[in-house]
Amino acid sequence: MPSNAVDPDKSSYNAALLVIGNEILSGRTEDKNINWIAKKLVEKGITFSEVRVVPDNAPRVIAAVRELSGLYDYLFTTGGIGPTHDDITAECVALAFDAPLEQNKEALALLVAHYGGSEHLNPGRLKMAQIPRGADLIPNPVSGAPGFILRNVHVMAGVPRIMQAMLDHVLSTLKGGALVHSCTVTSQLPESRIAEGLADLQKRWPNVEIGSYPHFQAGNFGVSLVLRSTDQDALAKAEADVKALVMALEGAA
Amino acid sequence: MPSNAVDPDKSSYNAALLVIGNEILSGRTEDKNINWIAKKLVEKGITFSEVRVVPDNAPRVIAAVRELSGLYDYLFTTGGIGPTHDDITAECVALAFDAPLEQNKEALALLVAHYGGSEHLNPGRLKMAQIPRGADLIPNPVSGAPGFILRNVHVMAGVPRIMQAMLDHVLSTLKGGALVHSCTVTSQLPESRIAEGLADLQKRWPNVEIGSYPHFQAGNFGVSLVLRSTDQDALAKAEADVKALVMALEGAA
Repeated sequence: MPSNAVDPDKSSYNAALLVIGNEILSGRTEDKNINWIAKKLVEKGITFSEVRVVPDNAPRVIAAVRELSGLYDYLFTTGGIGPTHDDITAECVALAFDAPLEQNKEALALLVAHYGGSEHLNPGRLKMAQIPRGADLIPNPVSGAPGFILRNVHVMAGVPRIMQAMLDHVLSTLKGGALVHSCTVTSQLPESRIAEGLADLQKRWPNVEIGSYPHFQAGNFGVSLVLRSTDQDALAKAEADVKALVMALEGAA
Repeated sequence: MPSNAVDPDKSSYNAALLVIGNEILSGRTEDKNINWIAKKLVEKGITFSEVRVVPDNAPRVIAAVRELSGLYDYLFTTGGIGPTHDDITAECVALAFDAPLEQNKEALALLVAHYGGSEHLNPGRLKMAQIPRGADLIPNPVSGAPGFILRNVHVMAGVPRIMQAMLDHVLSTLKGGALVHSCTVTSQLPESRIAEGLADLQKRWPNVEIGSYPHFQAGNFGVSLVLRSTDQDALAKAEADVKALVMALEGAA
């Protein structure tokens, strides 16, 4: 059984992301991974249920890995798998599951190949071959040092280019559920004029999630009404109802 | 005592952000608030300790508000304070603290003024005057509907322009601690060549947080070494040590 296997009879899957990074919390770096991962999970039919951002602090990372791994089908982590002293993710995931952290032969071979010989493996580079026992590696086509999968935890790099390559690999190994389809109805009406009718339509179409997102552009109010459902027939009918609501209110404006 | 008061003898303060929004988790919207808030908290001397993103789901929001409010000095929330059925933040914060949700006279007056008379207050607009009892309002100079502060929870809009105005107001009311100063040393060396020396410098300067952030631009490796501390003297000395390390390694390359 692969280490990331889940119940094969499940029809829906959810996931959380743990962003490990002082640089996000200090404001130095603007996260680019949350939105990328969100879109990829939609394409795969996996519900994205939670994101947490925590600092490079071992007790915090260990606690979050344990909790989120238990709450969701899949946990993804980004950040903290490099060669420096502030890269503590592999150690923390090992501690979270009481797995020994040890030199992984396959990871070592990848690093020897990437750096052009074992004589170039200094302590920092050797650190990147320290992987919890029992983990499967995630290839890193950009910079050599692999990510890994232990149980339902998928440990990826924080640098977006590397994370994106690792995520493609990871998602190809995961089961997803029914795809969520969506459509958007936009209007220049203020959200507060649509609210009452929209609440009624949400009751009429309980298996369609109706979200209302106001915007202010060039001094004008407007709203995007986003409908999402795995049921394409209900989605089309709900969309027609929302369009009729908007047209009636625009006509009355 | 204002509802957001904390122990006046504290010398450091931390904060968490709870992002309430299906639109972030579905990938429809890329969050722009985390980085903005992170930078503003640094300027105020408040340590940004955690971010969570949860869906528009009442039990999830209530549980997160309770937990994060208890763990940190300040909790900020973004999203879910508009007029539509999917705006559930005020109700959830009220439930989190067993405070009744009731029509707030000051909020009602703001909405009457914004919409040009009480005859324009439909049920959606009246919903935005429903505020937990005991809360202080946060003015909304953009679209009328206020945020609010209950205990240490600061409830703000999700639309960035409105959130930014609300945050300026909120931060003017909060106590901060010692300011964190930072400096950055960049190098074209790969991170893995600097790792060992950097770990030694981190041990030498325990009150300076040294972070190492690799980047790949135009096919080249490089690294930004970011030093952060409330102690400017230690920061300057640690920066000199890091620069010396980088120069020595670049000379040996």
